[in-house]
Amino acid sequence: MLDGAARCFARSGFHGTSMQDVLKEAGLSAGAVYRYFPGKEDIIAAITEETFATIRGAFEEAGRTSPPPTPDVLLSRVLGRVLSGEVHGLERRTFAALAVQLWSETLRDGRLAATLDEGYATMRAAWTRLVEAYRRAGILGGDVEADHVARTMIATAQGFIVQEALFGDVTPEVLENGLRGLMSMGPQKAS
Amino acid sequence: MLDGAARCFARSGFHGTSMQDVLKEAGLSAGAVYRYFPGKEDIIAAITEETFATIRGAFEEAGRTSPPPTPDVLLSRVLGRVLSGEVHGLERRTFAALAVQLWSETLRDGRLAATLDEGYATMRAAWTRLVEAYRRAGILGGDVEADHVARTMIATAQGFIVQEALFGDVTPEVLENGLRGLMSMGPQKAS
Repeated sequence: MLDGAARCFARSGFHGTSMQDVLKEAGLSAGAVYRYFPGKEDIIAAITEETFATIRGAFEEAGRTSPPPTPDVLLSRVLGRVLSGEVHGLERRTFAALAVQLWSETLRDGRLAATLDEGYATMRAAWTRLVEAYRRAGILGGDVEADHVARTMIATAQGFIVQEALFGDVTPEVLENGLRGLMSMGPQKAS
Repeated sequence: MLDGAARCFARSGFHGTSMQDVLKEAGLSAGAVYRYFPGKEDIIAAITEETFATIRGAFEEAGRTSPPPTPDVLLSRVLGRVLSGEVHGLERRTFAALAVQLWSETLRDGRLAATLDEGYATMRAAWTRLVEAYRRAGILGGDVEADHVARTMIATAQGFIVQEALFGDVTPEVLENGLRGLMSMGPQKAS
């Protein structure tokens, strides 16, 4: 049901999709759906929560190794998961299109904004702990705020979701190689 | 005129904004505006082209130094420019909100998609040449595809635009510090 709804949203936008469209795409009766999802917003909230849960899962797994996998390995794994159908079986470009629409919709929808705020705050805290683990393991220099590194890692994943939505040609390897290249550049000297 | 339009779009979305709203916000007569911008799409195309021009300007400047500024310095400069009102005087969160909406709208608008495709292809080629310059200068390891590094740099900037749209708390320093931190991590060993 959620993947049918996601396909509708990705194709026609939230505004251009009615609950009727969703029911038709999913092939379900109104009674079965409205019981769990009274409105489009509830569907979107469910997909958003599932996405954050998928990302959390990848992180909890990473937290079990010491030192944790470096950003190139970890981020490509997280991106691979959300783009590989782990979120409600969504095809990767559909997922990416949906994420971009969600961000756009959030700008005018306080409830969605609150869901995203909470999800990102949790994610940012988890990634900051990870950066601190890199530092303890001696694989990250000492002078940079952990939160800034965490936000940059999150930004990289978000940017590839934008690129997948726009161009449909993102693979986790591009992110993995690209980050590995940046990591090979060494610290910046004053210029 | 374009900044008035951008404020309307950022506030109410492309769908929720009429040409009447734009005229009212800009305080201009219909005749003055329609001559240059027959429709909303023309306004959006103009803002998009200005954004790509701003980014190109920062790159041409960077290309005049050898070796070019490293990604942390260069990307924070580019992000600083687009978020500092250089694009039609747009306030930074308005600009970011507009970019996210543009990406979202592109999914359903072939003409916008074509404009963005062209802009990104040019940008990607320029950033790939920059990565090759890093390699020639001996500041980037030899085994990673330049295009992958270029796409990762672009993704980082895009991701921070998403974060600015959602949270309004992005400064170029966050990106600069975060990338410097990642660059300090050194190449990934097999794990």
